[in-house]
Amino acid sequence: MTTKSQSKPKLYSFWRSSAAFRVRIALNLKGIPYEIIPIHLTKNGGAQFNPDYSEKNPTHLVPLFEDNEISIHQSLAIIEYLEETHPAPPLLPASPQDRAWVRSLAMDIACDIHPINNVRVLKYLLKDLGCDKEAKEIWYQHWIRLGLESLEKQLRSDSRLGRFAYGDQPGLVEVCLVPQLFNALSSEMDLSPYPTLLKILHECLMLPAFIEASWEKQIDAEGLNPRIPPQK
Amino acid sequence: MTTKSQSKPKLYSFWRSSAAFRVRIALNLKGIPYEIIPIHLTKNGGAQFNPDYSEKNPTHLVPLFEDNEISIHQSLAIIEYLEETHPAPPLLPASPQDRAWVRSLAMDIACDIHPINNVRVLKYLLKDLGCDKEAKEIWYQHWIRLGLESLEKQLRSDSRLGRFAYGDQPGLVEVCLVPQLFNALSSEMDLSPYPTLLKILHECLMLPAFIEASWEKQIDAEGLNPRIPPQK
Repeated sequence: MTTKSQSKPKLYSFWRSSAAFRVRIALNLKGIPYEIIPIHLTKNGGAQFNPDYSEKNPTHLVPLFEDNEISIHQSLAIIEYLEETHPAPPLLPASPQDRAWVRSLAMDIACDIHPINNVRVLKYLLKDLGCDKEAKEIWYQHWIRLGLESLEKQLRSDSRLGRFAYGDQPGLVEVCLVPQLFNALSSEMDLSPYPTLLKILHECLMLPAFIEASWEKQIDAEGLNPRIPPQK
Repeated sequence: MTTKSQSKPKLYSFWRSSAAFRVRIALNLKGIPYEIIPIHLTKNGGAQFNPDYSEKNPTHLVPLFEDNEISIHQSLAIIEYLEETHPAPPLLPASPQDRAWVRSLAMDIACDIHPINNVRVLKYLLKDLGCDKEAKEIWYQHWIRLGLESLEKQLRSDSRLGRFAYGDQPGLVEVCLVPQLFNALSSEMDLSPYPTLLKILHECLMLPAFIEASWEKQIDAEGLNPRIPPQK
């Protein structure tokens, strides 16, 4: 191995970004060491618009993953890459049928909840549409509630459910679910209608991979993790 | 092969849904015959909320893919499943690096443009936030413009660009891009700032897989394809 290939991959991240949080969990679960480069998404108009970062990532979003010659944005594309290059431990099941199941649940969060509630969208609601903070919060919780209701319904009756969404090892569902539940809790949403999701959250938060990836453990943290409600 | 396994897979689809359009293109590119079950997303409050469909797909979104015992929602999860079970012709490159590149571009559309402009979000703008039609249209075009600008920038300078985003065969980028450009054109957006994307659109619309998946070819079509501007 050359010195170059031994340098740690870089993750451009923001402590509160749930897409960056996903990749931090995935890297930790796979035991891949990495260096965090903080990108502050809200201070001084947002470091994601700085020319250096914009050149690397024209989407102006985090995370961005850099490892030697490769540079990847989009959290799920990064995680699929990690899965292909560092297969153990797997974050996806072995059979195409079960992989589809896990991917579809992860995408219910990553495609159909998170992007609608992203910082840039909330900013548009306030600045361009003139919404007040209450209307913004109702919007935020509305899309989370729709998504969590459907996830709870799909998971609770599925025979593949174990300690985690798919059996007894955490994978792509948890990688996406835990950051989304952190967002829900920080908005003071009641998670009691989603006992299956809350149980999975508790299981995850016993694991170092999730704890170390969480908000308050980040080098750029500006606050604590949300309070996790007890299980009933 | 049993008679059962010879029955065609079903795709629950709506002619204007760009997520369903993606899966139609992927199935056509792979030469997999399928049966369309139309789900009208806007008439009578939306067939996606009918009890039968809600039972199959609690997200109340299209598409849904059913094949024998398997039922998958989320367009990209369906397409990854098709890629794993029907690898030829491939929609993703061979190397993890290039697969990540293609997936990230596809997700720039599928995660960061489309969900923000989905029917249910536009309905929320009009009904819950009281936006007028003009504000809704400005919103719609804003997110498309941001996404297309970044895609154009990423693609035009990349050495992997050929007739299509990755070389000379269409794949996952085109599967997501063409439906998104149809949406942009139906909103009368000017595509001239995106010559690379427009060139790819023209290449795709010479192929039967894309033509047959397009709006006006659907059994539930209620209108024609948008007018495609000529290449400069």
